Amino acid sequence: MKNAYNAKAYSAASATSPLAADAIPRRNPTDHDVQIEILFCGICHSDLHQVRNEWREVMPTVYPCVPGHEIVGRVTKTGSAVTRYKEGDLVAVGCMVDSDHTCPNCREGLEQFCPNMTLTYNSPDKHLGGVTYGGYSDSIVVDERFVLRVPKNLDLAGAAPLLCAGITTYSPMRHWGVTKGKKIGVVGLGGLGHMAVKFAHALGAHVVVFTTSPNKKDDAFRLGADEVVVSRNADEMTKHTGSFDFILDAVSADHDINAYLNLLRRDGNITLVGAPEKPLPVSAFSLIMGRRSLSGSPIGGIAETQEMLDFCGKHNITADVEVIPIQKVNEAYDRLLKSDVKYRFSIDMASLKAE
Amino acid sequence: MKNAYNAKAYSAASATSPLAADAIPRRNPTDHDVQIEILFCGICHSDLHQVRNEWREVMPTVYPCVPGHEIVGRVTKTGSAVTRYKEGDLVAVGCMVDSDHTCPNCREGLEQFCPNMTLTYNSPDKHLGGVTYGGYSDSIVVDERFVLRVPKNLDLAGAAPLLCAGITTYSPMRHWGVTKGKKIGVVGLGGLGHMAVKFAHALGAHVVVFTTSPNKKDDAFRLGADEVVVSRNADEMTKHTGSFDFILDAVSADHDINAYLNLLRRDGNITLVGAPEKPLPVSAFSLIMGRRSLSGSPIGGIAETQEMLDFCGKHNITADVEVIPIQKVNEAYDRLLKSDVKYRFSIDMASLKAE
Repeated sequence: MKNAYNAKAYSAASATSPLAADAIPRRNPTDHDVQIEILFCGICHSDLHQVRNEWREVMPTVYPCVPGHEIVGRVTKTGSAVTRYKEGDLVAVGCMVDSDHTCPNCREGLEQFCPNMTLTYNSPDKHLGGVTYGGYSDSIVVDERFVLRVPKNLDLAGAAPLLCAGITTYSPMRHWGVTKGKKIGVVGLGGLGHMAVKFAHALGAHVVVFTTSPNKKDDAFRLGADEVVVSRNADEMTKHTGSFDFILDAVSADHDINAYLNLLRRDGNITLVGAPEKPLPVSAFSLIMGRRSLSGSPIGGIAETQEMLDFCGKHNITADVEVIPIQKVNEAYDRLLKSDVKYRFSIDMASLKAE
Repeated sequence: MKNAYNAKAYSAASATSPLAADAIPRRNPTDHDVQIEILFCGICHSDLHQVRNEWREVMPTVYPCVPGHEIVGRVTKTGSAVTRYKEGDLVAVGCMVDSDHTCPNCREGLEQFCPNMTLTYNSPDKHLGGVTYGGYSDSIVVDERFVLRVPKNLDLAGAAPLLCAGITTYSPMRHWGVTKGKKIGVVGLGGLGHMAVKFAHALGAHVVVFTTSPNKKDDAFRLGADEVVVSRNADEMTKHTGSFDFILDAVSADHDINAYLNLLRRDGNITLVGAPEKPLPVSAFSLIMGRRSLSGSPIGGIAETQEMLDFCGKHNITADVEVIPIQKVNEAYDRLLKSDVKYRFSIDMASLKAE
């Protein structure tokens, strides 16, 4: 392909195929592009949904599919007009690689809401045609406006998940004003939830973790929780009625949201970052009585993602990861479905050189 | 009864009894009290729920029950320490007659969230024991802090419903920033909805009314709507996708809230003021994609209720009412269940003198 080179990657050939080694085209860097050698890529549950075409109704998968949007790496080349990065810089790429830069959302720095935003994988590729390919690869080429800087003190394997699990939990906490003096709940202690606990703690809030698994208690405290509530224990739940300023709900399985709405103070908010497949039954009464609100939040904008990375640098926050070689990615997917990971897989992309 | 006098009222003796003439005790005004001759009292759907004990699980009814919390009247007597009102003043009383004045909500002027708030009817009466009796009566005695001033230019029969239907719709609009330049939806054109249209219009917003009844179109325009959408028409609905800043949902019947969530812009809010009996199924995806929120709102605080009345005075806003004598109240309840009123019943309390 003209203006392109071959990169190594792991791709799925169909919804039922395992991921396997492949060669994919990457564009040669244009004037505004940064070419990045990928060092680590986190595994997000979205990767699995996309690869298996589980979102066929809203975002049908184009094959071959190369997932991965929690990317950290090192700059290997920059286009002639690139001003922010130079060869050797430690950088990151998250869920987006482009947007229209002109819509009201983009002008406010909220590219995540741009109607013409390009996702890191499975979005139409304006440069090469076909779709974009994600981070399960040895390199990627991205417009410098969608490249983030990684603080030098962070562990790179643990930094990768910040680009999705991190910003997805950081953004709503900033939006809803999580600070010192606030009482914050985190529902579900998985990839997203464990990041939420770290952020809420670092932001100075009083953090309460809700979990269905009593055996996660110690870990919750280690991550920064001030209290842990086993959500199946009605008495424990009732003690917290009307006391929370904000609750981040990171559970994508069915669960009773009204039990949590009733724990909010006046004007308190629950934000969903996990998306259960079925609609959640919501009691109007629970919302009305305390002028409470239920909302959702996707990732954050580019400026906020950089702010989050800088915050992580300052507080030395990374995800708790299990580092795997790319050859174990299919096994990792199986384990992901059983929540058998503490708390995120991070692929060491050096392993791809062997393919 | 010591320190009390007999007032005329209409009360229900049981959940299945019609309302009928009765005599009830009212306390003699204490130092801080205002005694009011009731001139008009609006009929709120809550009156019917309470009388028929339909909220038995959360607020069981104590009989005899005298409903009514949309009260306007004239001051007939004031306690020695009353400073704000004098005999002859036009005043109003809404859903609350007392609160603890010390909790954080009260200190913020948000008495509607006070855990020790006293409702106008069916709340424990601190003065006489038993429960409080509402506005289907010839007089009422209320602490001056819960008495509002009615602007002189307002039609009194139409002003009565401002005390519940009015403040219930005005408060969330102020809370969520309804102003000129905003696009506002109102779902359901009943007692609450028709007030919401008037307020949103007077606040300078672009107002879209959603209704299931095409025959309400003309009325919606007359009340101040800029557009009317028949919500059963999917094409009409789709045209408005992603365009609303705020939607006030005044429907207490089952309805598809997700259809409205998708009409919100980024950061848009839907506030429920009607409370459907069954939980509403809410799609997490609809909330997440636009960082949208769903919330609820009860009445407003005392200061905001006065602000609303003053706003109504300035813009000459009252409810559209059908004035009835108290003797027709049972018939009015039957019609209320069929939504057969445009848009609120207001009882002319002079009719009670005949009993």
